[in-house]
Amino acid sequence: MATSEKPGLEVCFSPALLHLYDTRDKIVVIIDIFRATSTITAALDNGAKCIIPVASVAECISVGASISGSITAGERDGVVAEGLQHGNSPLEYPPAFIKDKTLVLTTTNGTRLLHMVKGAAAIVIGSFLNLSAIIAYLRQQNTSVILGCASWKDKFNLEDTLFAGAVVAALKDSFEIHDDSARGAWQIYLRSGGSDFLAFLNDSSHYKRLSRFGLYKDMEYCCTPDLHPVVPYLNKNEIIIM
Amino acid sequence: MATSEKPGLEVCFSPALLHLYDTRDKIVVIIDIFRATSTITAALDNGAKCIIPVASVAECISVGASISGSITAGERDGVVAEGLQHGNSPLEYPPAFIKDKTLVLTTTNGTRLLHMVKGAAAIVIGSFLNLSAIIAYLRQQNTSVILGCASWKDKFNLEDTLFAGAVVAALKDSFEIHDDSARGAWQIYLRSGGSDFLAFLNDSSHYKRLSRFGLYKDMEYCCTPDLHPVVPYLNKNEIIIM
Repeated sequence: MATSEKPGLEVCFSPALLHLYDTRDKIVVIIDIFRATSTITAALDNGAKCIIPVASVAECISVGASISGSITAGERDGVVAEGLQHGNSPLEYPPAFIKDKTLVLTTTNGTRLLHMVKGAAAIVIGSFLNLSAIIAYLRQQNTSVILGCASWKDKFNLEDTLFAGAVVAALKDSFEIHDDSARGAWQIYLRSGGSDFLAFLNDSSHYKRLSRFGLYKDMEYCCTPDLHPVVPYLNKNEIIIM
Repeated sequence: MATSEKPGLEVCFSPALLHLYDTRDKIVVIIDIFRATSTITAALDNGAKCIIPVASVAECISVGASISGSITAGERDGVVAEGLQHGNSPLEYPPAFIKDKTLVLTTTNGTRLLHMVKGAAAIVIGSFLNLSAIIAYLRQQNTSVILGCASWKDKFNLEDTLFAGAVVAALKDSFEIHDDSARGAWQIYLRSGGSDFLAFLNDSSHYKRLSRFGLYKDMEYCCTPDLHPVVPYLNKNEIIIM
């Protein structure tokens, strides 16, 4: 890339579309607002030693058993998965509980996308909880970026798109917008008014689904910007903070 | 479906996501604003006997050769494909030229999506040129609907999404919205203001691409609502009007 060119900024709405994007040598931001990337961000800022993202409940149990003092966590259908100790709520991991511990985490969408990305310059974790920290980090790198939405079982979702749109809104003048996904996410962010994200999302599939499990406080927390100003990134098999 | 239930309304942003949707017994609206479904709608309203959508240039040539008085049409990279007679512009098919003729048409995205849909109750053709006709038709059927965006080489595009959002805006009170894609398309439509679609789309990938080929008049035409108030549908291998 010539020094006069701006780096590119793209948004991938679903893991099922990831093959259309060239992730090599780009920074990929994994986005799973409800709730994997929110929980990872909160737990690390609250002092977790690291997060080990794993694909399945079985792997979570086996990796957890191999690390003394680790915590296994993950949900299926809104409850703690059988054989695991904790759920996928950022509120479950306050400093008094999580400090210096390793969290072995499996989730349906977010950890799956993370494992699909190949050849990236860096894989970082984005959520509203670290929105400004992610924006500041991306602005400093002068490297092309793909904002990767974990989606819901491969279907487009509003909350991940809204976050992607917030990042596009902040970066669009210093990056080259390469695709309509980035423009669409930005338009949706503009519709939200840019402040009360939870109110905008209350007509979304995931809000309705999590509401049935009574998880309003979780969603409120996940929609609060900048509570945890850290930049988690994947270092080999562990997520740690910079 | 119980009579008290509303039919469902979903939006599929890409052929690469179509496997996530159950198209059986639903009405599927094929959307390829720039320009396959606009051209099909215009040509049929202008008197074409039928449109035969085909997947490849080779098939277009061979089907065309088998039907006397047919016209073969299709573009690759913005010019008429080698071996075909006409392009993919709605302006190429005025009544004086197309009346009573069969148009054998191949396009990169729209005809491909059309051939992917399986088991649908009906496959109809949507564009801004027949926006109100499509809305009126869907309202009358009491059948669940999937709005299928042809996209651009499987990538989300703004123009197909904008049209889908216009349909969602009109039908959302009489249909059950099942997915965030429909909500996202609606939000993007609301951002457009619902009137000057071309102005909204001038910051889109396809607008920029077609502009390089000088196709402003085509795009202006494709963005004009209700010039051709017909409902084209697939009948075996031919597209005809109701």
